Amino acid sequence: MTNSQLTLVQIDNYGPWTVTPEPRREMDLQTLQSRLFADLAQFVGSRDGYVFFTRFDNMVAITNGLDADDHRLLQESIGNRYPVTISLGTGIDASPVEALETATAGLQHAGSAQDGDRREVLSGGYLSGPERTSSDVQIAHFDVNDATGKYTDQLNEFDSFIQIEQGYATLMRYLREEYGALSFFVGGDNIISICPAMDAADYRDAIDHVEAEAGVELKVGVGIAADPHTAGMDAKHALETCRHEGTVVELSRPVDGVEVATD
Amino acid sequence: MTNSQLTLVQIDNYGPWTVTPEPRREMDLQTLQSRLFADLAQFVGSRDGYVFFTRFDNMVAITNGLDADDHRLLQESIGNRYPVTISLGTGIDASPVEALETATAGLQHAGSAQDGDRREVLSGGYLSGPERTSSDVQIAHFDVNDATGKYTDQLNEFDSFIQIEQGYATLMRYLREEYGALSFFVGGDNIISICPAMDAADYRDAIDHVEAEAGVELKVGVGIAADPHTAGMDAKHALETCRHEGTVVELSRPVDGVEVATD
Amino acid sequence: MTNSQLTLVQIDNYGPWTVTPEPRREMDLQTLQSRLFADLAQFVGSRDGYVFFTRFDNMVAITNGLDADDHRLLQESIGNRYPVTISLGTGIDASPVEALETATAGLQHAGSAQDGDRREVLSGGYLSGPERTSSDVQIAHFDVNDATGKYTDQLNEFDSFIQIEQGYATLMRYLREEYGALSFFVGGDNIISICPAMDAADYRDAIDHVEAEAGVELKVGVGIAADPHTAGMDAKHALETCRHEGTVVELSRPVDGVEVATD
Amino acid sequence: MTNSQLTLVQIDNYGPWTVTPEPRREMDLQTLQSRLFADLAQFVGSRDGYVFFTRFDNMVAITNGLDADDHRLLQESIGNRYPVTISLGTGIDASPVEALETATAGLQHAGSAQDGDRREVLSGGYLSGPERTSSDVQIAHFDVNDATGKYTDQLNEFDSFIQIEQGYATLMRYLREEYGALSFFVGGDNIISICPAMDAADYRDAIDHVEAEAGVELKVGVGIAADPHTAGMDAKHALETCRHEGTVVELSRPVDGVEVATD
Repeated sequence: MTNSQLTLVQIDNYGPWTVTPEPRREMDLQTLQSRLFADLAQFVGSRDGYVFFTRFDNMVAITNGLDADDHRLLQESIGNRYPVTISLGTGIDASPVEALETATAGLQHAGSAQDGDRREVLSGGYLSGPERTSSDVQIAHFDVNDATGKYTDQLNEFDSFIQIEQGYATLMRYLREEYGALSFFVGGDNIISICPAMDAADYRDAIDHVEAEAGVELKVGVGIAADPHTAGMDAKHALETCRHEGTVVELSRPVDGVEVATD
Repeated sequence: MTNSQLTLVQIDNYGPWTVTPEPRREMDLQTLQSRLFADLAQFVGSRDGYVFFTRFDNMVAITNGLDADDHRLLQESIGNRYPVTISLGTGIDASPVEALETATAGLQHAGSAQDGDRREVLSGGYLSGPERTSSDVQIAHFDVNDATGKYTDQLNEFDSFIQIEQGYATLMRYLREEYGALSFFVGGDNIISICPAMDAADYRDAIDHVEAEAGVELKVGVGIAADPHTAGMDAKHALETCRHEGTVVELSRPVDGVEVATD
Repeated sequence: MTNSQLTLVQIDNYGPWTVTPEPRREMDLQTLQSRLFADLAQFVGSRDGYVFFTRFDNMVAITNGLDADDHRLLQESIGNRYPVTISLGTGIDASPVEALETATAGLQHAGSAQDGDRREVLSGGYLSGPERTSSDVQIAHFDVNDATGKYTDQLNEFDSFIQIEQGYATLMRYLREEYGALSFFVGGDNIISICPAMDAADYRDAIDHVEAEAGVELKVGVGIAADPHTAGMDAKHALETCRHEGTVVELSRPVDGVEVATD
Repeated sequence: MTNSQLTLVQIDNYGPWTVTPEPRREMDLQTLQSRLFADLAQFVGSRDGYVFFTRFDNMVAITNGLDADDHRLLQESIGNRYPVTISLGTGIDASPVEALETATAGLQHAGSAQDGDRREVLSGGYLSGPERTSSDVQIAHFDVNDATGKYTDQLNEFDSFIQIEQGYATLMRYLREEYGALSFFVGGDNIISICPAMDAADYRDAIDHVEAEAGVELKVGVGIAADPHTAGMDAKHALETCRHEGTVVELSRPVDGVEVATD
């Protein structure tokens, strides 16, 4: 069984800030948002966690391995270097969406995202060393079969993008509804999902669903480890195996000790 | 009539680079992608253009006001500071998607995105000063009605995100298919579209369609100017008018001289 | 004769901000300072100007080619993305230090650097197109002879650094006192100076003085152009000539039409 | 007694890279250097170490608390995101300059800084947890008395800068020669020194020497702890005490258990 520690990163009072006293230059907002995300990616990533840009004013991270001091420091450092501050809510659950539910609720209870007074909330609990196991985190890394050949080198960029987006929108809904998994587009033709303990047949079903609904063909590599970086890197290598072997689903190691035939 | 100058920014040989000699740490890739986008946002934005992160390895920009020297300098500067290089293809057309078609084709003719030899292509033409008019660029800025109240403060972040994504996926397809307009999610609950000459009724139809198909309620502010920044800032102000007046569609100035009743 | 347009960039109220309400983490201040400088380097540099980190809370730029709108935009963009704001004072004079005197005075008249109320001053005048000539900017690029062989590969890094610093401190004083030139250490073993119209003999004297006083051997390449980037790039190429020819002073083109023998 | 762990960060083959195939735009080099330093400041700083920009192609860090895995990860992450790579040499000694000597030698033995083949050296040893004590790191934070009143608000920026530089050049030589301490200008009117176990009288002597030699009046706060961040933050607070009490030297806690009268 997995045990995901999810952290929601929410910029405090961002909507009002972007238009006060007047609307700000859009490209400056894009720059601020992207660089704030990049800093989170470095802080969390160098501690072996993963963070996803999501909506930029709200970002989802899987933070198995980061403790209270890490979260506190991250919040302080952002507050020292940006014109905005962040609130951090954390939750832990075998189901990723349940963990995120707890994380989000921790912030919602403290106040609205656009509350003029709510700043730098730090809520929730963190997995201690002894509580962690090597199957806590399951990361699935999907990509589109021959995206470059089928889309990038053939269609105009927006039509390529529409294809990838439709595939993503379909996969994100299906995995959340069926498994409580959280999926994030990470660039190119890549989607990374934070999953509960799912097996090869589950991934095959998801891929079949996306092909039927959106006409987009995916393949997936899956990794399981105590931390997101290790699980995610195993997933990348498993995806390379798909690429070389011509397979569709590759798990880097059995789920819960059960040997699973790759497909 | 609009006259959009679209530039496609494509990282050369990125897919292979990310896995050679071995797959690279995902959070380092996220950092590189985001910071590269942020630099493009600053360069293009400070020349009054707009750029959208799109797929990060392929990014779409509307560059009315940027000439050949600007594109060449941008390419050189990125090449001096990143471990990757970029190719830039540009196209001009009243229809945004047609302009992007030309831009994309310019790169495709030079070689594949994953061509080991193709580097730093610079293709296409640029609007000269005398060719430009004050109705060249039409920017629409959509946001979701009361996203904070309905989603952010109520649902867990991923379910809020799914709602926004479904709304975006529906709007992006509709506007591209009906009008050749290109729509980009820019964070929070905001979508910015590069449009041809559309009127208030067209925007109303789009909003109705998204509400019917995805259950997401949008409002929109629209601006028209010679450059993206001015058009986009007018659109932001028009959106503030929607917010204060309770309206759904506001155009900052008439389209093609025809007075259009806002709705 | 040169005609330098110097801009002083000063962070408003920075000293107090760094310790209010409590002293901030030093590495966060270093990060903020460096990234602010980097953004200035990109904005000014992409418009063919040069900016030097100087004291980080006060930075000196040579901005021939940047006008009032450019300065205003730079100020606005920084204000949108950092937790601090900047004041910009500009001055124009054949003598670089006189131009900087004017630039500095413009800010001083508006209020103290640590004035709780003074924010985002924009003072001074800017060279118009017709006023500019191809000899406005003289840039000298010095480096230390065989720094890698003599210092970097021989001494511990701090002792190498002391040597470079002593050479820099001596050169900066001499050139300011003798010629009103402004010298800036730019990394490695490189110093870039903003000079008035000086000839090869003047540079030779300066190099002799530094060798006598600090025991550090320099060579120099000099460029003259309408803008800092072109002058600076010519200076770099002239320095490469020194490196290949074994010479000590190389001017990329004659000063004021007088042919000057390189030495 | 102190026990400093010093790490030298050296960009591999940087000199040649900056001019191959042609000299690169100076402002792009300044941007790359500053952003690389900022990333080091974040990585090392978030692990409670300190890093100083020094010469930018060679940077000095005090890394008590960072182990082999941390150094390895830092090197990998930079290699993934920049067009250059870094070598890291580490040394440990009660004397900061001796520790840096070891750190530097580790790289020099592997090859020249401009060796076409030497890349990503990782040399030296790291303090283990049990080896560390609460007096390992002594950080002194100097600033200039009333720099704003005396210089910034009175002189043109370059003449203010010359004053600060002369003060720094004098202090850096004196502290290195007398105590093996390493001093770094960190912006504004601030200098931070990595010191061995020195007492209040030693600091008073140094301040007297700088006033006599360079005419610059300094005051200093000193901290002692197991890690640079804690020692440095204590030093900042001690400096605030100087500011409020009108004193010249303040130690945040006694050196080696001996109560030292502040002066």
